Amino acid sequence: MGCVQSFRDLCDRPKNTNVRVSLPVVCFVWQTAMVILFGVFIRYNAESDVHWREFRRTNNISSDIENDFYFRYPSFQDVHVMVFVGFGFLMTFLKRYSFGAVGFNFLIAAFGLQWALLMQGWFSSLDTDGKIKIGVENLINADFCVAGCLIAYGAVLGKVSPVQLLVLTLFGITLYAVEEYIILSILHARDAGGSMVIHTFGAYYGLAISWMLYRPNLEQSSRLQGSVYHSDVFAMIGTLFLWMFWPSFNSALTDHGDGQHRAVINTYLSLASTVLTSVAVSSLFQKQGKLDMVHIQNATLAGGVAVGTAAEFMLMPYGSLIVGFFCGIISTLGYIYLTPFLEKHLKIQDTCGVHNLHAMPGVIGGVVGAITAAAATETVYGKEGLINTFDFDGDFKGTTPSRQGGMQAAALCVALVFGIGGGIFVGCILRLPIWGDPADEDCFDDQFYWELPEDEESVEPVLEYNNHTIRNKNVAETIFSVEQT
Amino acid sequence: MGCVQSFRDLCDRPKNTNVRVSLPVVCFVWQTAMVILFGVFIRYNAESDVHWREFRRTNNISSDIENDFYFRYPSFQDVHVMVFVGFGFLMTFLKRYSFGAVGFNFLIAAFGLQWALLMQGWFSSLDTDGKIKIGVENLINADFCVAGCLIAYGAVLGKVSPVQLLVLTLFGITLYAVEEYIILSILHARDAGGSMVIHTFGAYYGLAISWMLYRPNLEQSSRLQGSVYHSDVFAMIGTLFLWMFWPSFNSALTDHGDGQHRAVINTYLSLASTVLTSVAVSSLFQKQGKLDMVHIQNATLAGGVAVGTAAEFMLMPYGSLIVGFFCGIISTLGYIYLTPFLEKHLKIQDTCGVHNLHAMPGVIGGVVGAITAAAATETVYGKEGLINTFDFDGDFKGTTPSRQGGMQAAALCVALVFGIGGGIFVGCILRLPIWGDPADEDCFDDQFYWELPEDEESVEPVLEYNNHTIRNKNVAETIFSVEQT
Amino acid sequence: MGCVQSFRDLCDRPKNTNVRVSLPVVCFVWQTAMVILFGVFIRYNAESDVHWREFRRTNNISSDIENDFYFRYPSFQDVHVMVFVGFGFLMTFLKRYSFGAVGFNFLIAAFGLQWALLMQGWFSSLDTDGKIKIGVENLINADFCVAGCLIAYGAVLGKVSPVQLLVLTLFGITLYAVEEYIILSILHARDAGGSMVIHTFGAYYGLAISWMLYRPNLEQSSRLQGSVYHSDVFAMIGTLFLWMFWPSFNSALTDHGDGQHRAVINTYLSLASTVLTSVAVSSLFQKQGKLDMVHIQNATLAGGVAVGTAAEFMLMPYGSLIVGFFCGIISTLGYIYLTPFLEKHLKIQDTCGVHNLHAMPGVIGGVVGAITAAAATETVYGKEGLINTFDFDGDFKGTTPSRQGGMQAAALCVALVFGIGGGIFVGCILRLPIWGDPADEDCFDDQFYWELPEDEESVEPVLEYNNHTIRNKNVAETIFSVEQT
Repeated sequence: MGCVQSFRDLCDRPKNTNVRVSLPVVCFVWQTAMVILFGVFIRYNAESDVHWREFRRTNNISSDIENDFYFRYPSFQDVHVMVFVGFGFLMTFLKRYSFGAVGFNFLIAAFGLQWALLMQGWFSSLDTDGKIKIGVENLINADFCVAGCLIAYGAVLGKVSPVQLLVLTLFGITLYAVEEYIILSILHARDAGGSMVIHTFGAYYGLAISWMLYRPNLEQSSRLQGSVYHSDVFAMIGTLFLWMFWPSFNSALTDHGDGQHRAVINTYLSLASTVLTSVAVSSLFQKQGKLDMVHIQNATLAGGVAVGTAAEFMLMPYGSLIVGFFCGIISTLGYIYLTPFLEKHLKIQDTCGVHNLHAMPGVIGGVVGAITAAAATETVYGKEGLINTFDFDGDFKGTTPSRQGGMQAAALCVALVFGIGGGIFVGCILRLPIWGDPADEDCFDDQFYWELPEDEESVEPVLEYNNHTIRNKNVAETIFSVEQT
Repeated sequence: MGCVQSFRDLCDRPKNTNVRVSLPVVCFVWQTAMVILFGVFIRYNAESDVHWREFRRTNNISSDIENDFYFRYPSFQDVHVMVFVGFGFLMTFLKRYSFGAVGFNFLIAAFGLQWALLMQGWFSSLDTDGKIKIGVENLINADFCVAGCLIAYGAVLGKVSPVQLLVLTLFGITLYAVEEYIILSILHARDAGGSMVIHTFGAYYGLAISWMLYRPNLEQSSRLQGSVYHSDVFAMIGTLFLWMFWPSFNSALTDHGDGQHRAVINTYLSLASTVLTSVAVSSLFQKQGKLDMVHIQNATLAGGVAVGTAAEFMLMPYGSLIVGFFCGIISTLGYIYLTPFLEKHLKIQDTCGVHNLHAMPGVIGGVVGAITAAAATETVYGKEGLINTFDFDGDFKGTTPSRQGGMQAAALCVALVFGIGGGIFVGCILRLPIWGDPADEDCFDDQFYWELPEDEESVEPVLEYNNHTIRNKNVAETIFSVEQT
Repeated sequence: MGCVQSFRDLCDRPKNTNVRVSLPVVCFVWQTAMVILFGVFIRYNAESDVHWREFRRTNNISSDIENDFYFRYPSFQDVHVMVFVGFGFLMTFLKRYSFGAVGFNFLIAAFGLQWALLMQGWFSSLDTDGKIKIGVENLINADFCVAGCLIAYGAVLGKVSPVQLLVLTLFGITLYAVEEYIILSILHARDAGGSMVIHTFGAYYGLAISWMLYRPNLEQSSRLQGSVYHSDVFAMIGTLFLWMFWPSFNSALTDHGDGQHRAVINTYLSLASTVLTSVAVSSLFQKQGKLDMVHIQNATLAGGVAVGTAAEFMLMPYGSLIVGFFCGIISTLGYIYLTPFLEKHLKIQDTCGVHNLHAMPGVIGGVVGAITAAAATETVYGKEGLINTFDFDGDFKGTTPSRQGGMQAAALCVALVFGIGGGIFVGCILRLPIWGDPADEDCFDDQFYWELPEDEESVEPVLEYNNHTIRNKNVAETIFSVEQT
C-alpha cells in the first residue's frame, strides 16, 4: 500500500485540462490503426457475403429469412439503443455534465466497438484463412463488450478527461475479450446477458480505477455533484430505454426459438418486480415517504442485470420475479448506505453508483446462474433440452449439471479478478499527469472539455456582494447600477 | 346524487401527503402476492419452453423462425416503448410534475403488467393442467391492458397519490380483463388495436374517477397547471414515440402475414391524415393562426385510436385517411370547446384531455369497426379471407357480417358500461381519506411525493417585496442587501 | 443575376406572420385532395391484401414469415424514428425554435409521406389495372422521400413559415419522384441508402432555396441563432437516434439476406469511424482543445450518408472505415470554414449546415458508389453475386461493371441538377410575399407561429436600465421597487 501511496504522490501534479494535442492524436492514431487492422483481418462471414446464395444452396437453407440477420437484427438495434441512448442519457443527471455524459459515452462506444470486433474476433471468429469473419452476432458482441466499459465510465463520471476514457476503453476491451474467452470457451460457462462477463467485470473495473484515482478534495466540486429538475428528466430517458430493451439485451445471443423467447420473458418479469421493491424501499427510507430520483433511475434496472446469466435457463416466471424482488431492495439500500460507506471508508468515489446497479446485481446474477445450472434436471429440461441449453456437446459432452454449476461459480471469480486486477493496473496508468484530467475543484463541469453556449457559460458566481454570492449576471449588473445611482 | 354528495362530504377531510407507510406496504404486499400467484399459476408456453424442439417435430414446424416470437417481438418492443416512454413522456408537459408523470407511469405499468398476465391468463390462456402458459402474445396483451390504466391516469394526472394510482391500476386491470373476455370471447367482436377494449374503456374509467374525485378549488393550483418551454419539448418525445409506433400497436396481435401488414398500412395512413387536420383546426381557432402545443401533442394521435378496431379489416387506404381526417378535427375541437365545458358543467376535471384523445376517437373507432364489419362482403374479402379476418370458425362458423356488425356495436356498449360503472365504483374507494392525496392547492406539484433537487426545490415565492412577488432566491437576497446599505 | 435581383426587390415587402387563413386552407385542401387521389389510385398489394393466403398457395410460398413484411418492418420502424424523432430533434438545438423544429418537421413529414406514396406509386408501383398497390416497401420509400425534404428544411430552419414549408415539401416530393425514377429506372443506378437520390438532392434543393431567400439583415436575429445548454442535449436525442438507426436506413430496401446484412455492417463501421475523426478535428481547431457540440451533433453522421450508395456492395469492412474516416474530417472542417464562407461570399445561409452533413458526404457517397461499382469483379462477387447485387437482369442483362460505374456518375449529376435547379425554381415561388414568413429580425423565434407558455413568452428585454439590458421580469420589477423607495 505504501508503494501505491508514493505513486499517488508522484502523480499529484497541477492539472491542465488542455487536450488539444493529446485527444486528436489519440483519435487519429487509433482510428488509423483500426483501418489497417481491419484491412488485414476483417471480412464478411458467409451470411453477409455476396456468396450467400451459393451458401444457401450448399447448406440446403430453404429461405433468405433463415439468415441469422432476421433472428437477431431487431435485438441488435435495441442493444444499440441501450448502449448509446440508454447509458448516455442515464448519466446526464448531473446539472452541468450532460455534454460529457452523452458525448464521451458516444466517443468511447464508437471507438470501443471497433477494437472489440478485432479482439473478440481473434479469440472466437478466426477462420482457417486467418481472417475474422463478421456478421450480426459479432456486432452484438461488440456492443456488449462496449457496455462493460461504459459501466466503468459510470464510476468515474465527471472526474476524468476524454483521453483517459479512451485509454480506459482500450484496456477495458482487451481485458474483456480475454476474460470472456476464459469464461465462455475455457470454463464453458453460460452467460447470456453477461451478469458476470459484462456487469461484474465492468463495474469492478470502474470501481478499481476510481479507487486508484481517489480525489481527496472532491467535496470542492460538490456544488456540481447533483441534479437539476430537467437533468433528472433527461436521465429518465436513459433509464426507460435501458429498462424497456433489457429483454432484447439478455436474449440477443441466446439460442434461436425457445432460447430467445424464454430469455425475454424472464427479463421482462424480473425488471417489473424490481420496480416495485425499489419504490417501496426508496419511500420507506426517506422522510415523509418521498421518492428519490436516484433510486428510480438506477435501482429499477437491477433486476435486468441479475437475471442476465440465468435468462435462458428454466428459471420459471416466479423465479424471475423473486430475483427482481430482492435486487430492487439490495440495490436501493446500496444507494442509501453503501455508496457513502465506500466513499468514506474505502476511498471509492462512485459517481453513478455502479456498485449498486451493476456490481452487486451482477454477482447475484452469477450466483443465481450457478445455482440454477447445478439444479438443472432432465425432468424439467428433457434430455435434449439439457444438452441444447447448456451446450453439453463436442468437448463438453456428458458434463453434469452440478459440474456446470461449479464452472459458473469459477467464471464469477474470473470476472471479479479481471475487473479488480485490471482496474488497479489501468488506474495506475491513468494517474500519470499527462492525460488532461481536471483538478478536484473542477470536476463534474462541462466547461473544461466543451465549448458551452454563451449565456449559460458558467455557474460560477459573477460577483460577491455584501457576503452574498450573486450567480446571475443580470442581477449583478443591476446591483452595480443601483449602487452607482 | 344526494348520497354521492354526502359521501363526498364525509371524505373531504384535511389532506396528508405522507405515504411513507402506505406506499411501501402496498408495494411489498402486492409484489409478494405476485410471486406466490405466479408460482402457483404461471408457466412457459410451448414456444418459450425448453421442449420447443420436440414441439417443432411433433407439429411439423420446419424452422425456428416460425416461432411466434419472430412474428411479434419487434411489435412487442414498439408497444413497450409506447407504454413506458410514450405515455410517460406525453404527460411531462406540466411545469412541475414531470417526475410524477414519468415516474408513477413507470410504477403502475410495472405493477399492472404482472397483474394483467394473471387476470388475462385466467380468462384466456388457462391450460388443461390449471396453469397459465405464457409467451410473447401474453406480454403484448399485458402491455395493452396496462395502457388502459395509463389512459385513466391521464385524466387524474397531478391530483392523486401513488397509492391511489396503484389501487386504480389493480381495479382497472381486473375490470379490463373481464370486459375484454366479454367483448372478445363471448360477443366474439374483433378489436385489433383496442379502440373499444383499451381506449374507450380506459378513458371513461379515468373520467368517471375524475368526476368522483372532483376538486372544487382546483383553480388554487392553477399556477402549476401549465407547461414551460422545455416541458413541452419533453412531451413531444412522448407524442412522437406514440405516433411512430402506433402501427405496431394496432398490428401487434393481428393475424400473421397480411393481417399484420394491412393493420400497419391503415394505421400509418390514418395518423398522417390526422396531423394535417389537427394543425389546420389548431391554427384556425387561435388568434393570429398560432399553433397550440396541446393540440399538436395530443390530437395528432387521435387517428391511431380511431382506426384501432378496423385496422385489420379491408378499410382501404382512403378509408383510413378519412377516419384520420375527421378525428383530427373532432379531437382538436374537443380540446378547444369540450374540455372547458366538461370541467365547468359536468364537474369532470380532465388534466390531459383524455376525452378528446381516447374517449371520442375510441367510440368513433368502435362505430367504424361495426360499420365496416357489417359491410364486409365476399366480393372484397373472398370466402377464405372473410373467415380468417373475422374468425368465423368453430362456434362462430356461419356468422354473417351484419350479425358481426351488431356484435361490434354491443361490444362498444360493454366497454362504455365497464368504463363508467367501474370508474364510479373505484372513484368511491379512492375518495376515502386514507390514500395520501394532495390538497386542492397542492396539485400538479412534484414536491409532495419526490425529493427535488435543492436549487429548484420550490417555485413558491421566496419573498414578497413592495407588493412584488420575488421567486428568485438570489434576487431576494440582493434586495435585502441593497436595502441594508 | 440582374433579373433575380429585381425579383428579389419586388418580393421584399413588409412581412406579416399571420397564417390563420393560409395554413388551415392549405392543410384542408391538400388533405382532401389526398383522400380523393387515394380513393382513385391506391390499393393494398398482394402481401397486404386479404387474398394473401391464396397468393401464397399460387406462388408456392411455404410460410407467412416469408411475407415481405417480416423482412422489412423492423427496418421501417427504425427509419420512421429517424424521420420523426431523428430529424425533428436534431433541429431543436436553437434556443427558441424547438417547437418549430420538432413541430413543423412533424407536419411536413406527415403530409409528405402521403404525396410520396402517390408520386412514387405512379412511377414505380402502378399495376396493370391503373391502381398503385402498396406494401411495406412503399412505406419505406415514402419515408425516404420525406427525408429529402426534411434535409432541405435544415437549410432554411427558422427563416420560413409553415405554409412555405408545405409548398417546399409539395414540390420537393414531386421533384424527388422524377429524379428517383430517372436515376433508378432509366439510368439503372444503385443507391441503397440514397447518398445521391436523398442526401445530395435534398441538401442542394434546400441550399438553393436558402440562396433564393437570402436575408441580408439576418444578423438582427443573431441573439437567437445559438443554443442553450438544454437545447443542445435535446438535439443529441436526434443525433443518436439518427446515428443508431442509420444501418437500418441503408439496409431497409436492399436485397433479402446478404444484401441487408452487408449494408448494416458497412454502415455501422463507417459511422463508428466518423465519430473519432470528427472529435479529433473538432478538438484540434478549437482553443484549448474543447469540443464543439455542433460538430458532435452533425459531423458524426456524415459517414452514414457517404456509405449510402455503396452500402450493399462488397465495400469491405476496412473500406467502410476509410469512407467514414475522411467524411468525419471533411464534414467538421466544413462547419469550421465552409459554412461561414458560403454565408459571406455566396449568400447561402445554411442554418443546420446541411452542406457539411448531407451535400458533401452525399457527393462523396455517389463517387464512392461509382468507383466501387466500376471496380466490381467476378473474382470478388462471383458471377451470380454480380448479377444479383447490380441487378444485371432483364433489360440490363450483360451490363459491365465499368458501364455501371458510368451510370452511377451520371446519376450523381442528375441529383445535383434536380437539387439546384428545383431549388431555384421553388425558391422563386417562396419569395412571393404571401406566405407569412418572418422579418429578418424575427427569425429563429417560435413566438410567431406558436402559442408559447406564459412565463417564458419572450426573451425580449423587459427593461433597459442604466444602459443595462434587463431580461428577467422579476429583476426588472425589483429595480423598479428599489428605485421608488
